[in-house]
This record gives sequence, C-alpha cells and structure tokens, in this order.
Amino acid sequence: MAEEAISLIPEIRDLIAAGQLDDAAARLAAMHPADAADVIAELDQDDRLALIPAVPRAAMAAIIEYLPDQGREQILEPIPPDTLAGLLDEVDDDIVADILHQLPRELADAILRSMKRAWAVMPLLRHADETAGGHMTRSFIALNGGWTAERAIHYLRRIRPDADHAYYLYVVDAEGHLEGVVSLRDLIIAPPEALLADIMTRDVRYARDDMDQEEMARMVQRYDLVALPVVDAEARLVGVITVDDVLDVVEEEATEDILKLAGIGVKETVLSPLPESMRRRLPWLMVNMLVAFTAAGVVSLFEQTIAEVAALAAIMPIIAGQGGNSGIQTSTLVVRGLALEEIDMSDTLRVFWKELKLGVVKGLFFGSVLALLTYVWLGDGDATLAFIAGTAMFANMLVAASGGVMIPMTLRYVFRLDPATAAGVFDTMLTDIMGFFIFLGLATLLLDRLQ
Amino acid sequence: MAEEAISLIPEIRDLIAAGQLDDAAARLAAMHPADAADVIAELDQDDRLALIPAVPRAAMAAIIEYLPDQGREQILEPIPPDTLAGLLDEVDDDIVADILHQLPRELADAILRSMKRAWAVMPLLRHADETAGGHMTRSFIALNGGWTAERAIHYLRRIRPDADHAYYLYVVDAEGHLEGVVSLRDLIIAPPEALLADIMTRDVRYARDDMDQEEMARMVQRYDLVALPVVDAEARLVGVITVDDVLDVVEEEATEDILKLAGIGVKETVLSPLPESMRRRLPWLMVNMLVAFTAAGVVSLFEQTIAEVAALAAIMPIIAGQGGNSGIQTSTLVVRGLALEEIDMSDTLRVFWKELKLGVVKGLFFGSVLALLTYVWLGDGDATLAFIAGTAMFANMLVAASGGVMIPMTLRYVFRLDPATAAGVFDTMLTDIMGFFIFLGLATLLLDRLQ
Repeated sequence: MAEEAISLIPEIRDLIAAGQLDDAAARLAAMHPADAADVIAELDQDDRLALIPAVPRAAMAAIIEYLPDQGREQILEPIPPDTLAGLLDEVDDDIVADILHQLPRELADAILRSMKRAWAVMPLLRHADETAGGHMTRSFIALNGGWTAERAIHYLRRIRPDADHAYYLYVVDAEGHLEGVVSLRDLIIAPPEALLADIMTRDVRYARDDMDQEEMARMVQRYDLVALPVVDAEARLVGVITVDDVLDVVEEEATEDILKLAGIGVKETVLSPLPESMRRRLPWLMVNMLVAFTAAGVVSLFEQTIAEVAALAAIMPIIAGQGGNSGIQTSTLVVRGLALEEIDMSDTLRVFWKELKLGVVKGLFFGSVLALLTYVWLGDGDATLAFIAGTAMFANMLVAASGGVMIPMTLRYVFRLDPATAAGVFDTMLTDIMGFFIFLGLATLLLDRLQ
Repeated sequence: MAEEAISLIPEIRDLIAAGQLDDAAARLAAMHPADAADVIAELDQDDRLALIPAVPRAAMAAIIEYLPDQGREQILEPIPPDTLAGLLDEVDDDIVADILHQLPRELADAILRSMKRAWAVMPLLRHADETAGGHMTRSFIALNGGWTAERAIHYLRRIRPDADHAYYLYVVDAEGHLEGVVSLRDLIIAPPEALLADIMTRDVRYARDDMDQEEMARMVQRYDLVALPVVDAEARLVGVITVDDVLDVVEEEATEDILKLAGIGVKETVLSPLPESMRRRLPWLMVNMLVAFTAAGVVSLFEQTIAEVAALAAIMPIIAGQGGNSGIQTSTLVVRGLALEEIDMSDTLRVFWKELKLGVVKGLFFGSVLALLTYVWLGDGDATLAFIAGTAMFANMLVAASGGVMIPMTLRYVFRLDPATAAGVFDTMLTDIMGFFIFLGLATLLLDRLQ
C-alpha cells in the first residue's frame, strides 16, 4: 500500500468517529482513487458504510474501479443494492461485469434491475472471466471512414470521451465491422479535410471475444499496443481492451504459474482466510502424501538390506533430494519457456538433448562428490558403498533431466493441461521412486560385497 | 513465435539462396517488425548478413527494436560497426542503450563514435539497466505552459512525432522542471486559445531516474498509466517510460521470482547454451547438496536405531518430504505477497498466526494418516512406532509453517535480500533436519518399547 494512504487512515477513522463524514469524504475524494481504494479497504465495515454515502458519486465510482479483485465483493455486498447500482452506473463496464460475477446471483440481478447502464453491461456478462470478452470495455469510439479529420475532432470535442478510452478511434462500416484504426496523433497531424478512411491503418491487430486472456496479453505485449479491439464471430467491433487490463493479466498469469508450481490453488493469496487456504493447499499435499507413501513402499521392499547396512538410510535421501531439485529446475525452465512461448513441441528433442548433457555433467560431479564423502564419512571407508552411491546419483540425474523435460511437455501436448499444474509432483515422484529403487536395488545386488 | 513468421522462413531462405535479396528484403519489410524480428533471429548468420543491407534502413531499425533481449547481441555483433551505427541512429534511445550495454566494450565505443545520435544515447548509458533511467526514452515532447492548445497542435503537425511517444505532452519551465502533463485528448477537446498551463494536470506521477524498475512498474500498474515521466535529482524532466517497457518488466520480474524459487540464476532461459546453464544451476545444487549432507549427518547419528528398526528408514522421507512441500507452499505465498506488496513487515504476526493454525490442521490430518498407515502397513502393527511417526509429522508441520513465514521475512527485512532467492533452500534444510531429528530422536528415546 502507498504510504500516502496508510498515513491518512487514522485521521479518516477519527473524522468518522467524530461524525464529520463530509470532511472525511472530502479527504478521500482529494486522493488518487488507487490510494482512496486502499483506505476504504482498510476501514471497518461500519465506518465504511457510514462514509460511502457521503463521498461524491463520481469519486466513489472511481474508487470502486481501483478496489483489488480479491475481497472486493466483501466490501460492496453490504451496500444497499439501489445505492450500489447508482455507483456502478459510473464504473467501467468490464469492472462492473467482474463485480457482478463475484456477487451472489440474486444480489447481482437486483443491482442490474436498478442500473441505468444495464444494457451496456449485460452483453459482457455472457463472456467468461478469463477471455478477451471478459476484459473488454464497451466504451470505445467508433467512427465512419467517410468522416474528415476535422469532423472527427469536432465530434470528440462534443462527446468529451474519458481519458482512458481515447488513444485510438476505430473506423467501422455500417454493420459495425472493424475496418481500421486512427490514433489521436494521426488525427492531429492530418490535414483537416483528410478522410479517416485515407489516414487510418487498415492492418489492425484484434482479438476475438472468446480468445483466452493469456493469448490476448501476449499479443498486446508482442506488438507493443496500448489498446486492442475485440470483435465477435461476425468480425463486428464489440469492445476494446486497454493495456492496464493486460498488465493485470500478465501479473495474474505469472502468479498462477508460481502458485501452481508450488502446488497451491490459483486463487489463494497470502491473506486468504484459513478455510480457503485449507481448500487450496490440502489437495496437493494429499497427492504428495500418496507419492511419499509410494516411495516409502519402495524403501520398505529393501528393509532387510537397510537392517544390515544402516548407512544406506543416511545416504538415500541425498540421492532422492538432489534428483528432485534437479528435476524441478529443469521443469521450471520448461514450464516458463512454454508460458512465454520461447519453445513449443518442435523444440522437445533439442531441449531434451541439452538437459541430458547437463544431466551427465551434474551426475559426474555430484556422483563423485557423494562417492567421496560416502567413502570418507557416511560409509566408513567402504569402497563398494561409495561406488553404489555415486552410480545411483549419476543415474538419478539422468532420470531428473528426462522427467524435467518430458513431464511438462507431455502434460501440455498429450493431455492438453497447463504444464505448471502438477509438473512438480510428478517430478518428485519420479526422482524419489527411481532414486530409492536404483540405490537400494544396487545395494541389495551387491550386499555380500558391502562391509 | 507467430505462425505468420514461421511460415515465411523457408520462402525467405530460398530467396536468399537464389540471390534475390531485394525480394527477400521486401517480404521482410512488409511484415510487422515483431514478426520480421523472429524471422531474422531464425536465419543462419550468413543469410542474415547478406539480407540485412538489402532491408530499408527504417524497416531494419524497427526490426531491431523487436529483437528479443536474450541473444540480441549475437545477432548484431557480426554486423560491421558503421552499418550498425547507421541503423541504431533510428532505433529508440533506450533500446540502443540496452544493446550497447550488451556488446563488448570496444565495439560499443566504436559504434558510438559513428552514431549521429550519440548525444542522445550517452546520458542513458550512465543508468543501471534495472532502473527507471535504464528504461526511459529521451524522445518525449516537452512544451511551455504559456503556449495555447492551438500552437501546441501546430507544433505537433510540424514535428510529426512517433506514434509511440505521443500520448502525453509534458509541460516544463525554462529550466526543464516538470510542471504538468497534457494528454492528446485534453489538447483536442480544449478551446484552441486555452493555455497549456490552464488545461494541464499538475498532480503528475513521476519516477526518479534511479528508481528500481520493480517500483516503477508497480507505480504504472497501480495508477493505470500508459507513460511515466522520469526526472533527475533536480526534478528536471529527462525521459519517459512507456507502458510496453513496463509490461516487459512485470514479466521479467515474475520470471525472476519463479526461477529464483527453483534455484536458477535469473538470466537463464530454457534455450540458454549448456555452459551458461551449468553456471546458473550448479551453485544452488551445490548448496542443496551441502544441506542434504547435513541432513544425512543427522540420520547417521541414529544409525544404531535404524539398524534395529529398519522400518524407520521407509517412514522418515515421508515426514521430511511432506514438511518440505508444506514449507514451500507457505514461503511461495509469502514471497509472492511481498513481491506484489500485498503484505509487509507489519503483517508478519498475522500471517504467522494463520499459517500456524493451518499447520495444526495439517499436522493433525497428515499425522493421523501417517500413524494409521504406519500401524497397518509400514510398521506391521507397532503402536509405538505409529505414535512416534504421527507425532513427528505433527511437529514437522509446525516447523514448516514457522519456517515458511519467518525465512522469507527474515531474508527481506533483516538481511535486505530478495526473499525469493534462497527461501526454498532454507525451507527444505529446516524441515529435513528437524523432521529427521524429531522422528529418529523420538524413536531412539522409545527404542525399548518398539518391537
């Protein structure tokens, strides 16, 4: 939170406690709405409900636009539906659609019935949250290609568009099909009598309304756009995505990948309430527990050997753990490379071959280190044990390299799943089970040569 | 890579092989420079060097702007310095500065000596890569507050600024101090005789040139900006950051966090050459190996106990592994929460308390499951062993919760390090060592009650 916002919270609390709601509201309205949104989120519900009606409607609408996605519904739900509908009439359509998606169905319906701009929001509600249609705003400027630059400028002076929606003007035909784009800069430097059709750029990048948000973000990023028009199945312009939404999507997608790699449900944040955290984290830990039991089952096959050479128990977690971490390094790079579109299926062999070579290097290095330390320390001078430990480490590094590449690639291209989801679980499973099996298996085979 | 680009590569290769360089260059110039950059990057060096002189200079400069940061220097280095200097004269200043930072010192100096716009690039070279100064462009439009809107529009018509640099006009005083900002939209809807000083927004968000790129990105994101002015220590406007740079920074910072959490040096990608991958990954694996040896040392203290009850060896990796994964879930959320500024030091106790409660739940659940499965399977009906296993699992869940919160917080607020760097290593170290110690220690204490 910005320090500006933090420092004002006690003051605003005091003003509310003293009943000076108008003063408190004036303070809030004077701040940047992003900061005011932080203050609103930090207040107790009673203070908040007392303060909100005193804030000028336009200022409060701007504040709502900046409330964090997480927890926004808890802040808005207690506001009477009529009041909330009035506020939402001045909020950006795409944010209203998001909010209505978050609220309980009945409440959302009641609000829509009271909203003047329900007609603009309803079409957005059909779109899934994580598509281009779910992020677009319908407040865009569409003009006719037969207009002159001068007429377009006069039109803009008359409608005084929001600053957020006025980087580009879109040119459409009579049926609303997207024909081209004119930037404000083009409009200003064009001769006043030039036709929009003559100064517009015809080769416009656009998204279909059902395009996945990740693909949409990648497009904006790739072509350095500040806005991306959205068309429906009939190529009619239906909305525009602005770059601030794309920034949020890029961050959201990265956070999703990070959390998935750690085995956490994607909607959790560090401040999520306890029951939600349990729901988000326990399932993966249960899968992990199953994996651990499978690995333990492998170990228990060799209990006889361990009872004779207890040093095996000290060495085996080193082999499994080093394999797990190596595998996770590889699969993290592959998962991120897939997400950033640096690689695709055609690169599988190339990446596999490189990781295998790296696996040989790691195997020789860590295998030698482990063999040496087993000889001088953990194995008390037993050369056979040192050899077995080194060999198992070498083999497990190759297992880790293969798994690290093939597991995310298979998840993505064979099962069509997000490769981040479970790559870590499968990685650990493979290196634990194979590591224990190779090491304890070799030890059992060579048991009569061990001291 | 966009399919558009991929499909054209064979055609362009054939044209080059047939000596039809102008045709090949024309194809390239007709594509979006982002796509053309992909084609250039995919060609062999000989083909590339043959083709580049044939591409019109402005088109080639645009292509250079879209080359990926990674590997850009390998593509540009073989181009003769004079030719390259001529191309870079038409490339955005901030990108030129990045490129010169990447090239060998002598070559960069030679290029600067041949560049016409060296004066614009030199001041940028002083700034560290990962600061606002390192990302800004010096191609901004600064006007005098005494000008009328009409005069400003005439001025824009005359200078015909790049589309990328014309969303905002900055108003500065005679010494270049930033006074306000006017958007193109403000300029268009203002009466022609209005003074810029009267229509400008005075409360401008800006960055100091030495501001860290992460803070700068957060600011653009928080206030939904499409450009951010940069000032020097004397509050003089020295450059502007555009939102496309911020998008790249957000993605770069997220990738850094992901790679650091997996213990990978931050500049590696899945396609990095082998020696670089070794340099980026081996150090952390060595640290991990040290950790593993420490844990093995703990196990070897209890070899006597394990020799008597070999089932301990099968159970102990379950306790350590489940602890490690729990700890990594918690620390990943804390690391991401710190990065997104959802939490700071003042939230430590609140987060700690929540994770501890969750740890109790996980401990009771997984402790019971482990005790049960030990009783019926791994421990062959030994109730004492089941009790020990369950208790150790419970305790290790509390260790994981504490470590998961305290390790990243300590790294960040006590040692002032990036909490992502080594949180995973310390987490695993703590849960492995404590898990083995608690479990095997309890087993040794109660050895005469074990079957």
